[in-house]
Amino acid sequence: MSMLYEGALQDLVEEFGKLPGIGPKSAQRLAFHILQSPLEEVEALSSALTEVKKRVRFCEICGNVAEDERCVICKDGRRDQSIICVVEEPKDVVAIERTREYRGLYHVLGGSIDPMAGVGPDDLRVKELLPRLQSGEVAECVIATDPNLEGEATATYLVRLLSSVGVTVSRLASGLPVGGDLEYADEVTLGRAFEGRRPVTG
Amino acid sequence: MSMLYEGALQDLVEEFGKLPGIGPKSAQRLAFHILQSPLEEVEALSSALTEVKKRVRFCEICGNVAEDERCVICKDGRRDQSIICVVEEPKDVVAIERTREYRGLYHVLGGSIDPMAGVGPDDLRVKELLPRLQSGEVAECVIATDPNLEGEATATYLVRLLSSVGVTVSRLASGLPVGGDLEYADEVTLGRAFEGRRPVTG
Repeated sequence: MSMLYEGALQDLVEEFGKLPGIGPKSAQRLAFHILQSPLEEVEALSSALTEVKKRVRFCEICGNVAEDERCVICKDGRRDQSIICVVEEPKDVVAIERTREYRGLYHVLGGSIDPMAGVGPDDLRVKELLPRLQSGEVAECVIATDPNLEGEATATYLVRLLSSVGVTVSRLASGLPVGGDLEYADEVTLGRAFEGRRPVTG
Repeated sequence: MSMLYEGALQDLVEEFGKLPGIGPKSAQRLAFHILQSPLEEVEALSSALTEVKKRVRFCEICGNVAEDERCVICKDGRRDQSIICVVEEPKDVVAIERTREYRGLYHVLGGSIDPMAGVGPDDLRVKELLPRLQSGEVAECVIATDPNLEGEATATYLVRLLSSVGVTVSRLASGLPVGGDLEYADEVTLGRAFEGRRPVTG
Protein backbone atom coordinates (compact mmCIF):
# COMPACT_ATOMS: atom_id res chain seq x y z
CA MET A 1 0.00 0.00 0.00
CA SER A 2 1.38 3.40 -0.89
CA MET A 3 1.77 6.29 1.52
CA LEU A 4 -1.80 7.37 2.14
CA TYR A 5 -1.91 8.54 5.73
CA GLU A 6 0.08 11.26 7.38
CA GLY A 7 3.23 10.42 9.35
CA ALA A 8 2.43 8.62 12.59
CA LEU A 9 -0.62 6.72 11.40
CA GLN A 10 1.18 5.56 8.25
CA ASP A 11 4.17 4.48 10.37
CA LEU A 12 1.91 2.36 12.54
CA VAL A 13 0.13 0.80 9.54
CA GLU A 14 3.57 -0.14 8.17
CA GLU A 15 4.83 -1.53 11.50
CA PHE A 16 1.71 -3.68 11.92
CA GLY A 17 2.09 -4.82 8.30
CA LYS A 18 5.52 -6.28 9.13
CA LEU A 19 4.03 -8.75 11.60
CA PRO A 20 3.45 -12.30 10.36
CA GLY A 21 -0.11 -12.95 9.16
CA ILE A 22 -1.08 -9.25 9.15
CA GLY A 23 -1.93 -8.04 5.63
CA PRO A 24 -2.35 -4.38 4.56
CA LYS A 25 -6.08 -4.29 5.36
CA SER A 26 -5.60 -5.81 8.82
CA ALA A 27 -2.71 -3.44 9.48
CA GLN A 28 -4.97 -0.50 8.65
CA ARG A 29 -7.80 -1.84 10.80
CA LEU A 30 -5.42 -2.38 13.74
CA ALA A 31 -3.96 1.11 13.36
CA PHE A 32 -7.42 2.70 13.50
CA HIS A 33 -8.29 0.51 16.45
CA ILE A 34 -5.21 1.87 18.24
CA LEU A 35 -6.12 5.45 17.28
CA GLN A 36 -9.52 4.98 18.90
CA SER A 37 -8.31 3.04 21.97
CA PRO A 38 -7.75 4.70 25.36
CA LEU A 39 -4.16 5.85 25.86
CA GLU A 40 -3.63 3.47 28.82
CA GLU A 41 -4.45 0.45 26.66
CA VAL A 42 -2.09 1.56 23.91
CA GLU A 43 0.66 2.20 26.43
CA ALA A 44 0.08 -1.26 27.92
CA LEU A 45 0.66 -2.88 24.53
CA SER A 46 3.56 -0.58 23.74
CA SER A 47 5.39 -1.39 26.97
CA ALA A 48 4.51 -5.11 26.83
CA LEU A 49 6.43 -5.21 23.54
CA THR A 50 9.64 -3.75 24.90
CA GLU A 51 9.32 -5.58 28.24
CA VAL A 52 9.38 -8.90 26.41
CA LYS A 53 12.65 -7.96 24.76
CA LYS A 54 14.10 -6.72 28.06
CA ARG A 55 12.95 -9.46 30.40
CA VAL A 56 12.42 -12.70 28.50
CA ARG A 57 15.37 -14.95 27.80
CA PHE A 58 15.90 -18.68 27.41
CA CYS A 59 16.35 -21.16 30.28
CA GLU A 60 20.01 -22.17 30.52
CA ILE A 61 18.99 -25.76 31.25
CA CYS A 62 16.11 -26.59 28.92
CA GLY A 63 15.93 -23.71 26.42
CA ASN A 64 12.33 -22.82 27.34
CA VAL A 65 11.40 -19.14 27.71
CA ALA A 66 12.31 -17.78 31.15
CA GLU A 67 12.72 -14.56 33.10
CA ASP A 68 15.63 -15.91 35.17
CA GLU A 69 18.55 -18.18 34.36
CA ARG A 70 16.08 -21.02 34.75
CA CYS A 71 12.46 -21.37 33.62
CA VAL A 72 9.56 -22.02 36.01
CA ILE A 73 9.53 -25.72 35.14
CA CYS A 74 13.25 -26.31 35.72
CA LYS A 75 12.98 -24.36 39.01
CA ASP A 76 10.03 -26.49 40.19
CA GLY A 77 11.45 -29.27 42.40
CA ARG A 78 8.11 -31.11 42.35
CA ARG A 79 8.48 -31.97 38.66
CA ASP A 80 9.52 -35.54 37.87
CA GLN A 81 13.27 -35.24 37.28
CA SER A 82 13.52 -38.72 35.73
CA ILE A 83 11.84 -37.88 32.43
CA ILE A 84 12.66 -35.29 29.78
CA CYS A 85 10.35 -34.44 26.90
CA VAL A 86 12.08 -33.03 23.80
CA VAL A 87 10.07 -30.44 21.84
CA GLU A 88 10.83 -28.03 19.01
CA GLU A 89 9.56 -24.73 20.43
CA PRO A 90 8.52 -23.12 23.73
CA LYS A 91 4.90 -23.05 22.53
CA ASP A 92 5.01 -26.86 22.36
CA VAL A 93 5.79 -26.82 26.11
CA VAL A 94 2.64 -24.78 26.62
CA ALA A 95 0.57 -27.18 24.49
CA ILE A 96 1.79 -30.18 26.50
CA GLU A 97 1.37 -28.41 29.87
CA ARG A 98 -2.22 -27.71 28.93
CA THR A 99 -2.96 -31.47 28.75
CA ARG A 100 -2.00 -31.87 32.46
CA GLU A 101 -0.81 -35.38 31.49
CA TYR A 102 2.89 -34.75 31.90
CA ARG A 103 4.82 -33.80 35.06
CA GLY A 104 8.42 -34.26 33.88
CA LEU A 105 10.99 -31.83 32.47
CA TYR A 106 11.46 -30.48 28.95
CA HIS A 107 14.21 -29.86 26.45
CA VAL A 108 13.47 -27.23 23.81
CA LEU A 109 15.47 -27.71 20.61
CA GLY A 110 14.67 -24.31 19.14
CA GLY A 111 13.47 -25.74 15.83
CA SER A 112 13.71 -28.88 13.72
CA ILE A 113 16.21 -30.35 11.29
CA ASP A 114 15.39 -28.87 7.89
CA PRO A 115 18.09 -29.38 5.24
CA MET A 116 16.12 -27.29 2.71
CA ALA A 117 16.34 -24.29 5.07
CA GLY A 118 19.93 -25.14 6.00
CA VAL A 119 19.07 -26.11 9.59
CA GLY A 120 21.12 -29.04 10.87
CA PRO A 121 21.56 -30.60 14.35
CA ASP A 122 24.31 -28.10 15.21
CA ASP A 123 21.83 -25.24 14.82
CA LEU A 124 19.56 -26.79 17.46
CA ARG A 125 20.06 -27.37 21.20
CA VAL A 126 21.02 -31.01 20.59
CA LYS A 127 24.46 -31.02 22.22
CA GLU A 128 22.93 -29.57 25.42
CA LEU A 129 20.56 -32.57 25.58
CA LEU A 130 23.21 -35.29 25.93
CA PRO A 131 24.73 -34.28 29.32
CA ARG A 132 21.22 -33.94 30.76
CA LEU A 133 20.40 -37.52 29.77
CA GLN A 134 23.77 -38.77 31.02
CA SER A 135 23.42 -37.30 34.51
CA GLY A 136 22.16 -40.63 35.88
CA GLU A 137 18.91 -39.09 37.11
CA VAL A 138 17.01 -39.48 33.86
CA ALA A 139 15.30 -42.78 32.94
CA GLU A 140 13.26 -41.75 29.90
CA CYS A 141 13.41 -39.29 27.03
CA VAL A 142 10.12 -38.64 25.19
CA ILE A 143 10.60 -37.23 21.70
CA ALA A 144 7.67 -34.92 20.94
CA THR A 145 8.66 -33.14 17.73
CA ASP A 146 5.97 -32.02 15.30
CA PRO A 147 4.35 -34.83 13.25
CA ASN A 148 5.51 -33.26 9.97
CA LEU A 149 8.44 -33.91 7.63
CA GLU A 150 11.00 -31.87 9.57
CA GLY A 151 9.78 -33.09 12.95
CA GLU A 152 9.96 -36.72 11.81
CA ALA A 153 13.48 -36.20 10.46
CA THR A 154 14.51 -34.64 13.77
CA ALA A 155 12.95 -37.50 15.76
CA THR A 156 14.70 -40.13 13.59
CA TYR A 157 18.02 -38.33 14.10
CA LEU A 158 17.53 -38.14 17.87
CA VAL A 159 16.44 -41.78 18.23
CA ARG A 160 19.66 -42.84 16.51
CA LEU A 161 21.82 -40.40 18.52
CA LEU A 162 20.32 -41.43 21.86
CA SER A 163 20.37 -45.19 21.26
CA SER A 164 23.69 -45.54 23.10
CA VAL A 165 22.95 -43.15 26.00
CA GLY A 166 21.24 -45.77 28.15
CA VAL A 167 17.86 -44.13 28.74
CA THR A 168 14.51 -45.33 27.39
CA VAL A 169 13.69 -43.27 24.30
CA SER A 170 9.99 -43.01 23.44
CA ARG A 171 7.86 -41.12 20.97
CA LEU A 172 4.32 -39.78 21.19
CA ALA A 173 1.70 -42.12 19.76
CA SER A 174 0.42 -41.27 16.30
CA GLY A 175 -3.14 -42.02 15.38
CA LEU A 176 -6.55 -40.54 14.85
CA PRO A 177 -7.15 -37.15 16.45
CA VAL A 178 -9.79 -37.39 19.16
CA GLY A 179 -13.04 -35.75 18.13
CA GLY A 180 -12.33 -36.08 14.40
CA ASP A 181 -14.04 -38.19 11.76
CA LEU A 182 -12.24 -41.27 10.46
CA GLU A 183 -13.18 -40.42 6.88
CA TYR A 184 -11.35 -37.09 7.10
CA ALA A 185 -8.08 -38.57 8.38
CA ASP A 186 -5.29 -38.54 5.79
CA GLU A 187 -3.82 -41.89 4.63
CA VAL A 188 -0.62 -41.54 6.63
CA THR A 189 -2.46 -40.82 9.88
CA LEU A 190 -4.89 -43.66 9.31
CA GLY A 191 -2.01 -45.98 8.43
CA ARG A 192 -0.24 -45.04 11.66
CA ALA A 193 -3.44 -45.63 13.61
CA PHE A 194 -3.58 -49.14 12.16
CA GLU A 195 0.07 -49.83 12.91
CA GLY A 196 -0.41 -48.70 16.49
CA ARG A 197 -3.68 -50.55 17.16
CA ARG A 198 -4.00 -52.08 20.61
CA PRO A 199 -5.83 -55.14 21.82
CA VAL A 200 -8.82 -54.27 23.99
CA THR A 201 -11.21 -56.38 26.00
CA GLY A 202 -14.91 -55.72 26.33
CA MET B 1 -6.17 -19.20 27.48
CA SER B 2 -4.96 -19.61 31.03
CA MET B 3 -1.69 -18.23 32.40
CA LEU B 4 0.89 -20.45 30.76
CA TYR B 5 3.89 -18.21 30.20
CA GLU B 6 5.89 -16.24 32.70
CA GLY B 7 5.20 -12.54 33.27
CA ALA B 8 6.31 -10.42 30.33
CA LEU B 9 5.59 -12.96 27.59
CA GLN B 10 2.16 -13.73 29.02
CA ASP B 11 1.43 -9.98 29.26
CA LEU B 12 2.27 -9.56 25.60
CA VAL B 13 0.15 -12.56 24.55
CA GLU B 14 -2.75 -10.99 26.45
CA GLU B 15 -2.21 -7.52 24.98
CA PHE B 16 -2.10 -8.90 21.43
CA GLY B 17 -5.21 -10.96 22.20
CA LYS B 18 -7.15 -7.75 22.93
CA LEU B 19 -6.70 -6.51 19.35
CA PRO B 20 -9.60 -7.07 16.94
CA GLY B 21 -9.26 -10.19 14.81
CA ILE B 22 -6.35 -11.60 16.85
CA GLY B 23 -7.30 -14.91 18.49
CA PRO B 24 -5.31 -16.71 21.23
CA LYS B 25 -3.19 -18.71 18.75
CA SER B 26 -2.32 -15.64 16.68
CA ALA B 27 -1.54 -13.68 19.85
CA GLN B 28 0.89 -16.40 20.88
CA ARG B 29 2.48 -16.53 17.42
CA LEU B 30 2.89 -12.74 17.38
CA ALA B 31 4.41 -12.71 20.88
CA PHE B 32 7.03 -15.30 19.87
CA HIS B 33 7.71 -13.36 16.69
CA ILE B 34 8.40 -10.28 18.85
CA LEU B 35 10.62 -12.31 21.19
CA GLN B 36 12.74 -13.37 18.22
CA SER B 37 12.76 -9.98 16.43
CA PRO B 38 15.68 -7.53 16.68
CA LEU B 39 15.25 -4.97 19.46
CA GLU B 40 15.19 -2.04 16.99
CA GLU B 41 12.20 -3.51 15.16
CA VAL B 42 10.29 -4.07 18.39
CA GLU B 43 11.07 -0.55 19.55
CA ALA B 44 9.87 0.82 16.20
CA LEU B 45 6.49 -0.85 16.66
CA SER B 46 6.34 0.09 20.34
CA SER B 47 6.96 3.77 19.66
CA ALA B 48 4.72 3.85 16.55
CA LEU B 49 1.87 2.84 18.87
CA THR B 50 2.32 5.68 21.33
CA GLU B 51 3.23 8.21 18.60
CA VAL B 52 -0.16 7.62 16.97
CA LYS B 53 -1.89 8.47 20.23
CA LYS B 54 0.32 11.53 20.76
CA ARG B 55 0.35 12.99 17.27
CA VAL B 56 -2.77 11.94 15.40
CA ARG B 57 -5.96 13.93 15.89
CA PHE B 58 -8.96 14.80 13.75
CA CYS B 59 -9.16 17.63 11.23
CA GLU B 60 -11.26 20.48 12.66
CA ILE B 61 -12.86 21.04 9.27
CA CYS B 62 -13.61 17.62 7.82
CA GLY B 63 -13.03 15.13 10.66
CA ASN B 64 -10.36 13.18 8.75
CA VAL B 65 -7.22 12.06 10.58
CA ALA B 66 -4.63 14.83 10.82
CA GLU B 67 -1.44 15.83 12.57
CA ASP B 68 -2.35 19.54 12.64
CA GLU B 69 -5.62 21.42 13.13
CA ARG B 70 -6.31 20.61 9.48
CA CYS B 71 -5.70 17.45 7.45
CA VAL B 72 -3.52 17.33 4.33
CA ILE B 73 -6.57 17.45 2.07
CA CYS B 74 -8.19 20.51 3.70
CA LYS B 75 -4.78 22.25 3.66
CA ASP B 76 -4.33 21.55 -0.06
CA GLY B 77 -5.55 24.63 -1.99
CA ARG B 78 -5.41 22.71 -5.28
CA ARG B 79 -8.33 20.51 -4.26
CA ASP B 80 -11.69 21.35 -5.82
CA GLN B 81 -13.41 23.41 -3.12
CA SER B 82 -16.83 23.16 -4.81
CA ILE B 83 -17.48 19.51 -3.99
CA ILE B 84 -17.63 17.68 -0.68
CA CYS B 85 -17.73 13.89 -0.38
CA VAL B 86 -19.34 12.56 2.81
CA VAL B 87 -17.87 9.30 4.13
CA GLU B 88 -18.21 7.32 7.33
CA GLU B 89 -14.57 6.81 8.35
CA PRO B 90 -11.06 8.15 7.61
CA LYS B 91 -10.20 4.84 5.93
CA ASP B 92 -12.91 5.54 3.38
CA VAL B 93 -11.04 8.74 2.46
CA VAL B 94 -7.98 6.60 1.79
CA ALA B 95 -9.99 4.17 -0.31
CA ILE B 96 -11.39 7.02 -2.45
CA GLU B 97 -8.03 8.79 -2.77
CA ARG B 98 -6.59 5.56 -4.12
CA THR B 99 -8.96 5.68 -7.11
CA ARG B 100 -7.49 9.07 -8.23
CA GLU B 101 -10.99 9.85 -9.57
CA TYR B 102 -11.87 12.50 -7.03
CA ARG B 103 -10.17 15.84 -6.40
CA GLY B 104 -12.70 17.52 -4.08
CA LEU B 105 -12.94 17.76 -0.30
CA TYR B 106 -14.29 15.31 2.26
CA HIS B 107 -16.50 15.25 5.29
CA VAL B 108 -15.96 12.34 7.68
CA LEU B 109 -19.03 11.50 9.76
CA GLY B 110 -17.21 9.24 12.21
CA GLY B 111 -19.66 6.35 11.71
CA SER B 112 -23.14 5.63 10.43
CA ILE B 113 -26.66 5.85 11.82
CA ASP B 114 -27.28 2.58 13.63
CA PRO B 115 -30.36 2.57 15.89
CA MET B 116 -29.55 -0.96 17.11
CA ALA B 117 -26.23 0.30 18.47
CA GLY B 118 -27.80 3.53 19.71
CA VAL B 119 -25.98 5.71 17.17
CA GLY B 120 -28.12 8.59 15.89
CA PRO B 121 -27.32 11.66 13.74
CA ASP B 122 -26.29 13.62 16.85
CA ASP B 123 -23.50 11.13 17.51
CA LEU B 124 -22.02 11.80 14.06
CA ARG B 125 -20.42 14.93 12.55
CA VAL B 126 -23.68 15.86 10.81
CA LYS B 127 -24.20 19.34 12.28
CA GLU B 128 -20.64 20.29 11.17
CA LEU B 129 -21.60 19.43 7.58
CA LEU B 130 -24.39 21.98 7.15
CA PRO B 131 -22.34 25.22 7.52
CA ARG B 132 -19.76 23.82 5.07
CA LEU B 133 -22.45 23.27 2.43
CA GLN B 134 -24.01 26.68 3.14
CA SER B 135 -20.78 28.65 2.66
CA GLY B 136 -21.72 29.44 -0.96
CA GLU B 137 -18.56 27.85 -2.32
CA VAL B 138 -19.94 24.32 -2.52
CA ALA B 139 -22.01 23.17 -5.50
CA GLU B 140 -22.22 19.44 -4.88
CA CYS B 141 -22.29 17.02 -1.98
CA VAL B 142 -21.53 13.36 -2.83
CA ILE B 143 -22.81 10.90 -0.26
CA ALA B 144 -20.43 7.94 -0.12
CA THR B 145 -21.52 5.98 2.92
CA ASP B 146 -21.01 2.20 3.01
CA PRO B 147 -23.42 0.24 0.78
CA ASN B 148 -24.80 -1.69 3.77
CA LEU B 149 -27.86 -1.27 5.95
CA GLU B 150 -26.45 1.43 8.24
CA GLY B 151 -24.77 3.29 5.38
CA GLU B 152 -27.98 3.30 3.37
CA ALA B 153 -29.94 4.57 6.37
CA THR B 154 -27.37 7.32 6.86
CA ALA B 155 -27.50 8.26 3.18
CA THR B 156 -31.30 8.40 3.19
CA TYR B 157 -31.22 10.61 6.28
CA LEU B 158 -28.66 12.97 4.72
CA VAL B 159 -30.47 13.21 1.36
CA ARG B 160 -33.60 14.35 3.20
CA LEU B 161 -31.68 16.71 5.48
CA LEU B 162 -29.77 18.33 2.62
CA SER B 163 -32.72 18.69 0.23
CA SER B 164 -33.29 22.30 1.30
CA VAL B 165 -29.64 23.39 1.45
CA GLY B 166 -29.42 24.33 -2.21
CA VAL B 167 -26.51 22.18 -3.34
CA THR B 168 -26.70 19.21 -5.70
CA VAL B 169 -26.77 16.05 -3.61
CA SER B 170 -25.51 12.92 -5.33
CA ARG B 171 -24.78 9.35 -4.36
CA LEU B 172 -22.23 6.90 -5.65
CA ALA B 173 -23.53 4.68 -8.45
CA SER B 174 -24.71 1.30 -7.38
CA GLY B 175 -21.70 -0.32 -8.97
CA LEU B 176 -20.60 -1.11 -5.46
CA PRO B 177 -21.38 -4.63 -4.35
CA VAL B 178 -24.33 -4.36 -1.96
CA GLY B 179 -23.74 -5.76 1.52
CA GLY B 180 -20.03 -4.97 1.53
CA ASP B 181 -17.90 -2.31 3.16
CA LEU B 182 -16.68 0.62 1.08
CA GLU B 183 -13.08 0.11 2.16
CA TYR B 184 -13.02 -3.37 0.58
CA ALA B 185 -14.08 -2.23 -2.90
CA ASP B 186 -11.31 -2.46 -5.50
CA GLU B 187 -10.09 0.77 -7.12
CA VAL B 188 -11.79 0.18 -10.47
CA THR B 189 -15.20 -0.52 -8.96
CA LEU B 190 -14.94 2.45 -6.66
CA GLY B 191 -13.71 4.66 -9.50
CA ARG B 192 -16.65 3.59 -11.70
CA ALA B 193 -19.02 4.33 -8.85
CA PHE B 194 -17.62 7.86 -8.69
CA GLU B 195 -17.92 8.38 -12.43
CA GLY B 196 -21.53 7.18 -12.39
CA ARG B 197 -22.74 9.20 -9.40
CA ARG B 198 -26.26 10.60 -9.91
CA PRO B 199 -28.16 13.55 -8.45
CA VAL B 200 -30.96 12.53 -6.11
CA THR B 201 -33.80 14.34 -4.38
CA GLY B 202 -35.20 13.65 -0.92
